Amino acid sequence: MAKKINFYPVILAGGRGTRFWPMSRKRRAKQLLALDGKQTMIQQAVSRLLALAPAARFWIITNEDLQGEIARQLPKLSKRQIVAEPVGRNTAPAIGLAAFLLLRDDPDAVIGMFPSDHVIGDEARYRQVLKQGISIAAEGENIVVLGIQPTRPETGYGYIEAGYPARESDPLPVRRFTEKPDVQLAAEFLNAGNYYWNSGMFLWSARTLTNALREHLPKTAPLLERIAAAFGTAKFDATFRRLYPKCENISIDYAVLEPRSAKGEHNSRIFCLPANFGWNDLGSWTALHEHHVAKSNPADGNVISGAGSFTLNAEGNYVHAPGKFVATVGVSDVVVVETEDALLITTRRHSQDVGKIVKHLDEKKLNKLV
Amino acid sequence: MAKKINFYPVILAGGRGTRFWPMSRKRRAKQLLALDGKQTMIQQAVSRLLALAPAARFWIITNEDLQGEIARQLPKLSKRQIVAEPVGRNTAPAIGLAAFLLLRDDPDAVIGMFPSDHVIGDEARYRQVLKQGISIAAEGENIVVLGIQPTRPETGYGYIEAGYPARESDPLPVRRFTEKPDVQLAAEFLNAGNYYWNSGMFLWSARTLTNALREHLPKTAPLLERIAAAFGTAKFDATFRRLYPKCENISIDYAVLEPRSAKGEHNSRIFCLPANFGWNDLGSWTALHEHHVAKSNPADGNVISGAGSFTLNAEGNYVHAPGKFVATVGVSDVVVVETEDALLITTRRHSQDVGKIVKHLDEKKLNKLV
Repeated sequence: MAKKINFYPVILAGGRGTRFWPMSRKRRAKQLLALDGKQTMIQQAVSRLLALAPAARFWIITNEDLQGEIARQLPKLSKRQIVAEPVGRNTAPAIGLAAFLLLRDDPDAVIGMFPSDHVIGDEARYRQVLKQGISIAAEGENIVVLGIQPTRPETGYGYIEAGYPARESDPLPVRRFTEKPDVQLAAEFLNAGNYYWNSGMFLWSARTLTNALREHLPKTAPLLERIAAAFGTAKFDATFRRLYPKCENISIDYAVLEPRSAKGEHNSRIFCLPANFGWNDLGSWTALHEHHVAKSNPADGNVISGAGSFTLNAEGNYVHAPGKFVATVGVSDVVVVETEDALLITTRRHSQDVGKIVKHLDEKKLNKLV
Repeated sequence: MAKKINFYPVILAGGRGTRFWPMSRKRRAKQLLALDGKQTMIQQAVSRLLALAPAARFWIITNEDLQGEIARQLPKLSKRQIVAEPVGRNTAPAIGLAAFLLLRDDPDAVIGMFPSDHVIGDEARYRQVLKQGISIAAEGENIVVLGIQPTRPETGYGYIEAGYPARESDPLPVRRFTEKPDVQLAAEFLNAGNYYWNSGMFLWSARTLTNALREHLPKTAPLLERIAAAFGTAKFDATFRRLYPKCENISIDYAVLEPRSAKGEHNSRIFCLPANFGWNDLGSWTALHEHHVAKSNPADGNVISGAGSFTLNAEGNYVHAPGKFVATVGVSDVVVVETEDALLITTRRHSQDVGKIVKHLDEKKLNKLV
């Protein structure tokens, strides 16, 4: 492990994040919003990784709607580091393209795949876990997945079942991935103790990842290789636009992790690193509300951002109304979010349905609102 | 009854209407808002009386904060018809001043006292009832009060107990006035059948009213007489400012109606005219919501004004957000009102507490918001 390992963070930032409507829009997706603090989510994602890799080693994979704003938000990155997919093809082609790009220059490079819109509470611990993961990923065909200790029987996440390491100091081998279980199964996982939420954060070398793609996605891998070969040339744009849409639309979990885990926990070389660094994917307004409550612990559970507020017999509300005086009277557990052109009124229980509003707006072609 | 009766509507428009915050403000009180339709409440109050009296016979009694905007909203009235009290002294001095002003020119004039912020559903019936009331009020010392058939055990109104007329065609003599009863008493009144809500609409001749004021408010009546005597002269402003604050701060109900009713139902000459013309005083956002529901009968009970809306599992909400697309998801019975500088979030059950917000803003000297 004494050899020099070059670490390349690849941040996937193509998501639309409809669950934060009306604040999130097609051109102002969740990762571009400052939902927690002054920096936007993607700025935070980059900032906390800059201690592990210089700015020149980052790749951002996004879409054409967001590319310009991401470049504006990340002035330390050059424009060529921000790659806009001509069409979305889920995570396998996105991270795969980055892997083939790196393979040419540095096959031993360790690639980290990161979401662009999550919150990390303890950044020091985060970097410590990542350093450990990078060391593991640098060895042979190892794949590292960061697993989150579950705290509730969440049905919206994938779960990782961990086995037992051969030696106590070794990382946990992964037995199996299970996509979004029903609530009963999720409760069993929670109680079992050896299940983790799939954080969407993976580490592997460029060689390991490209080999895995050639094995598990034999049609898509050569397309990605041809696109990567054109990178930096005049033909890149046309090649990308022509070939990328032909790639399979599939997540890296389905494409590589699940089939590979079928080789058995002692042969798959997939390891789970428990990631106890205050992870939160902020999947809804309600999750954001809970995150703020956990941070600032208001006595009445109200999280209100506006120009002043008054509350009377009001508890557990989340209100975002910048520049306005907010008065909440006799109302509990509502979520109200105001933007220049829209007003969302829902409840903590129903905020996961906000995506349905965007679906409706899409259908009605109310393009200004999406 | 063949003699010519001149009818003078006096509209009391000095109220602040804090219960419609954040839309109502000190300088934009409820009566100046278009809560129901395109006309403001005071414009409606004047419009529906123009069939009974020409514009030149109206008097508006208001305060200095509202005088300018009222003049703007009522261009048919001359500025001298819009009298601004230097301080609020409740309804007895306000209507009393109008009575002394009229007494000089036309002692037989019938004065109608009207709130400026109520809704009338059936204007034809309203005018019919008023015509009947004007005829009664023109006779001798008669006083006419318009009574509303109660529909619920409301504790926020005054009640009128009616007796039985000597002849069937005669109007109902008033036995007693009871201010805001508790809910048990209100329920008894509701069940009794001969109780009416006090609408705040009264009719009497200038002579009857001034005589009553001299009898029941012997200190205040001469002050009002002196102010009225100065009207139209250079001394009016100074006289009004000096003497009006010395008037008793008392409602016409307490000052005149209640003591006079103590003379007994066959001696007091107070008559109640049942006023079945779709009266609603719109006392809160909830009352406004119910008024709109009764008018347009939406299947889900939602009343939403904005630039488009989407509702999903949402019922019985009132939302006012001009210019915004409003999405309500999984939320019921809330009241949300947005203005340029404020956002109110409450429930149908709690909207009567909105005045407490204004009290808080007054205390905190947040003058821009009140």
